[in-house]
Amino acid sequence: MSDTKLQAVLSSLSQAARQLDVLPSGRPAPDASYVKLNTNENPFPLPTIVWQSAIAALERQYLYPESDNISLREAAADAYGLSKDHVIAGNGSSELLGLIYRAFLAPGDSVAMMSPGFSFNRKLALLQGAQLLEIESSEPHSLPVEQFLLAPAKDAKFILLANPNNPTGTFVPVADIECLLAQSDRLIVLDEAYVDFAPDNGLRLVNRYSNLLLLRTFSKSYAAAGIRVGFGFGHPELIGRLRNIQNVFSMNVVGHAIGISVLAHRAAYEENHGHIRHERQRVTIALSKLGFYVTPSHANFLLARVPEGRDGRCWQAALEKQKILVAFFPDKGLENCIRVSIGTRPQMDAFLAATRDISESFRVGRSPASRL
Amino acid sequence: MSDTKLQAVLSSLSQAARQLDVLPSGRPAPDASYVKLNTNENPFPLPTIVWQSAIAALERQYLYPESDNISLREAAADAYGLSKDHVIAGNGSSELLGLIYRAFLAPGDSVAMMSPGFSFNRKLALLQGAQLLEIESSEPHSLPVEQFLLAPAKDAKFILLANPNNPTGTFVPVADIECLLAQSDRLIVLDEAYVDFAPDNGLRLVNRYSNLLLLRTFSKSYAAAGIRVGFGFGHPELIGRLRNIQNVFSMNVVGHAIGISVLAHRAAYEENHGHIRHERQRVTIALSKLGFYVTPSHANFLLARVPEGRDGRCWQAALEKQKILVAFFPDKGLENCIRVSIGTRPQMDAFLAATRDISESFRVGRSPASRL
Repeated sequence: MSDTKLQAVLSSLSQAARQLDVLPSGRPAPDASYVKLNTNENPFPLPTIVWQSAIAALERQYLYPESDNISLREAAADAYGLSKDHVIAGNGSSELLGLIYRAFLAPGDSVAMMSPGFSFNRKLALLQGAQLLEIESSEPHSLPVEQFLLAPAKDAKFILLANPNNPTGTFVPVADIECLLAQSDRLIVLDEAYVDFAPDNGLRLVNRYSNLLLLRTFSKSYAAAGIRVGFGFGHPELIGRLRNIQNVFSMNVVGHAIGISVLAHRAAYEENHGHIRHERQRVTIALSKLGFYVTPSHANFLLARVPEGRDGRCWQAALEKQKILVAFFPDKGLENCIRVSIGTRPQMDAFLAATRDISESFRVGRSPASRL
Repeated sequence: MSDTKLQAVLSSLSQAARQLDVLPSGRPAPDASYVKLNTNENPFPLPTIVWQSAIAALERQYLYPESDNISLREAAADAYGLSKDHVIAGNGSSELLGLIYRAFLAPGDSVAMMSPGFSFNRKLALLQGAQLLEIESSEPHSLPVEQFLLAPAKDAKFILLANPNNPTGTFVPVADIECLLAQSDRLIVLDEAYVDFAPDNGLRLVNRYSNLLLLRTFSKSYAAAGIRVGFGFGHPELIGRLRNIQNVFSMNVVGHAIGISVLAHRAAYEENHGHIRHERQRVTIALSKLGFYVTPSHANFLLARVPEGRDGRCWQAALEKQKILVAFFPDKGLENCIRVSIGTRPQMDAFLAATRDISESFRVGRSPASRL
């Protein structure tokens, strides 16, 4: 009985959903003994005043969150010098990115992204039955504007930029982005997840270009990856349609409260950002001395090309044996790299100690020590 | 400049998104002086042990939530006698409902729902460019199985049932649902949001019928509407595909922790459920004495037909003037009804006092008193 019914149900899936298989089960979260430097979290506690707002929200746990995220959108508008109609709030910028894909892409459409970029976009394009055009650039510190104005990118429904870029950590001048906004009539989605660690940002462009949608998240610079708070800033006609597509109550009351409180107390994070810049510099120098080539980073992570002789996957595995988690990407051009998040000083000391030990063992041909 | 760009951007929207206008701004949440009986919340605090788990989770706020909700899915599987592959967890059942619409419906498709039903489904169908077929039943206490087996419902991509139903509060025998599951090869989505207040439930059908997807939420019986915790139970081949469509990290760490802790301490809510059943009975009797006809309810709300002479909207407005919020639905057949959530005893006393006052004022033709 069940097989016939199951086949009937699966055959009712939409064309895009039918391409997807059953998701393999994820891995359980690593235990707390690991030094977690693989997903660019920011391992610092909430400021006391933000914590208190979260506790107060927990006491209203039985009430539905405020509809349409009004107070949070107003708080973000105030903080960033916009009107609330310019702001959409979401369960991390990942929810907002998903909304943009759903709003713009039908099967057969395409979207263009700088390469190497955030791999999550491949999944989002696949879910729409759309093609992700990955535009390679020979010069990481400037934007290849011309390439986005020519086929095939010019026919994409929208263009995705990340500044600073992930996983490279590179930053292109905001003037380059403005140049593309002025010359293109495509929607430019500018993901500024890491911008609080960079020298400039594109916020001033929001009111100037109605083809810009700027994304921000509190996962990185505001140490709230687990809370899921993100924003999109853009023209009210676009933002209002995205809000209309958004599912109800996608953020919970704790996310709302932390979001509002962080916006009111951004100065409390300056020390955190200073620490990350400082450690980023210290670890860059230390890795360089060990024979790594580190791309100068404007984010809270480093993309480091490992010393010759072993590839990035080999280094990632050796570090994991010492309970240090870093990211590796099998993409072309990244095979010899690892990406290392910037954490606390003790975390970075542990990473550097393990790296020295592995360096030495690879040099003399012995197995690296294991902390397991 | 901006208008040309804006028009170009808006013309890139997909066909379904282009139908939608800018969302009008939502209303701010009512202040705490209102007695809120309009959205079926359950106004009781978290049990202490659940609260403690939420606090512990807040201390991990900087870490991304566990991917694929593994621990939460395992906890739900244990609690409900399933395997984790039968379980998808989401940011309220509303996220899961949204996933089902996206997985099954393309423009031109249809979905069938019992009428009157949860109006949110109209929006979800519209977002997919699909048609919502509302199937009317002449008999609220049984399922019109035949109607779902014949055109037009038999060509729907899936069928939506809610048991107990919202906004009626009626409950149909689980045997009726089993009868439909056995005779149909459509996917049957059974929303059991209110089932903990009802005499039976459909959980035992999950392992028997691979065309069943059961939805549960912690918004109602577990007093966690603000936290956003929902589950879907079904065949692993279907659940695994929905998990694959789901956006990353749609629940935050506090939602995960509260979900896991509630599942381990469901017995702590029995007193709450007993209270709601008791108040439901008390308010039903009191309203009947005031000339209302109350549909016998198996949920945490009452659908009450108001006394002749005024319609439901008029009663809703009169109650709102006395700072009591109840729901009104303009749909055919519901114009003379209000829906009243069951809250605490003091809340229900305030509702009944206001109702008596309005009754009296309507009778003698004076304006009802105002608490404003």
